Amino acid sequence: MRLLLISNSTNAGEEYLKYPIEEIKSFLEGVSEVLFVPYAAVSFSYDIYESKVQSRFDEIGIKVVSTHRLDNPALAIATAQAVVVGGGNTFALVKRMQEEGLMSAIKSRIDKGMPFVGWSAGSNVCCPTLCTTNDMPIVQPQSFNTIGAIKFQINPHYLDHNPEGHAGETREQRIEEYIAANQDMYVAGLREGCMLKVEGEELSLIGSRPLRVFKYGEEPIEIAAGGDFTLLM
Amino acid sequence: MRLLLISNSTNAGEEYLKYPIEEIKSFLEGVSEVLFVPYAAVSFSYDIYESKVQSRFDEIGIKVVSTHRLDNPALAIATAQAVVVGGGNTFALVKRMQEEGLMSAIKSRIDKGMPFVGWSAGSNVCCPTLCTTNDMPIVQPQSFNTIGAIKFQINPHYLDHNPEGHAGETREQRIEEYIAANQDMYVAGLREGCMLKVEGEELSLIGSRPLRVFKYGEEPIEIAAGGDFTLLM
Repeated sequence: MRLLLISNSTNAGEEYLKYPIEEIKSFLEGVSEVLFVPYAAVSFSYDIYESKVQSRFDEIGIKVVSTHRLDNPALAIATAQAVVVGGGNTFALVKRMQEEGLMSAIKSRIDKGMPFVGWSAGSNVCCPTLCTTNDMPIVQPQSFNTIGAIKFQINPHYLDHNPEGHAGETREQRIEEYIAANQDMYVAGLREGCMLKVEGEELSLIGSRPLRVFKYGEEPIEIAAGGDFTLLM
Repeated sequence: MRLLLISNSTNAGEEYLKYPIEEIKSFLEGVSEVLFVPYAAVSFSYDIYESKVQSRFDEIGIKVVSTHRLDNPALAIATAQAVVVGGGNTFALVKRMQEEGLMSAIKSRIDKGMPFVGWSAGSNVCCPTLCTTNDMPIVQPQSFNTIGAIKFQINPHYLDHNPEGHAGETREQRIEEYIAANQDMYVAGLREGCMLKVEGEELSLIGSRPLRVFKYGEEPIEIAAGGDFTLLM
């Protein structure tokens, strides 16, 4: 299994998909073309999304082919060199991936070693369910089940604090609700600028900020890059 | 139709359910007992939720009976003087309300004039769907459909800005995704400390901060208390 699961496409004040591109390059070494799943885009077109990603992937010499151009995306996944799933709205992404049968098609290829790259919502769909997304439910998918390549849930864009004076739940409170309702599950709070890499059975963290790991009945723990992540695998 | 839809239970730094209690008192004039729906509580018990709300409602002389104590909550709604739905996690709330048949039971009573009070997730469930909640999807409800007493969606805890340095979507961006995917719907961004009141055909805003109203293809508009809200009804 080969996965690169990125918290966020873009750090505040930086260019689109800039910070993770070198990591994507080395992760996708030998790949000349990727199949791109653009369905998390809601307020801009899939064409625009494909060309934004292509612009950045031009730097690493990889051609981007978006699934929205294909008659049978699930079939194309069967022969793709790699699959890349972009961020945006998780509910919109999951709905159309389910409608096109992409969850099981991608899972089957991941099991056979095909590299998978996702960021934000694209990392969420690699988890067992869409739960722990930060996104607003704007459409209803068939179910909350997603690819399930990993056994734990990722919370991308993990954020430690609320804006001053705001009384809504903090991210940690939201995740505590999730683990209270799903007591056997681990949640990995993946801060911006960070990514998780799975190579075979080994999980590692890339980035300067630690992963915050939640499990029901236990104190959250912080694990920095280079640490031991076996509890998640 | 009589609805009091409150953005948030508690302002930052204030006591629980303190700021809206005088408004609840005048809205529920003549009511001696309310049926309370506590199912948005996830990380604390329904018993505790009931007693927290009872403590505040003691100040206005109203008895609180929580539906989790009843054999047949839907039947109890048929004869309730008023229904109060508390905040917490919207997905957990919707799931159990659907399982117990409370959505249609409450809608039927609202149509006949029974007063309804909700805050946060409790305001969300009065909308056509749970879409536009800020909450994390921690469990999967039967569907996204909710009570539908009003025709527009509320975004409670509406927040203008992100914390400094955070690149995740702003609330406005999230709502723009919702209206892009649901182009005939209005969304009302209800800031903390504010509430919407429906008396018959009339909608009004209570609170010192304006309502921010979103519709696809239009610039968001701000409407302050005392303004004209007929476009939402």
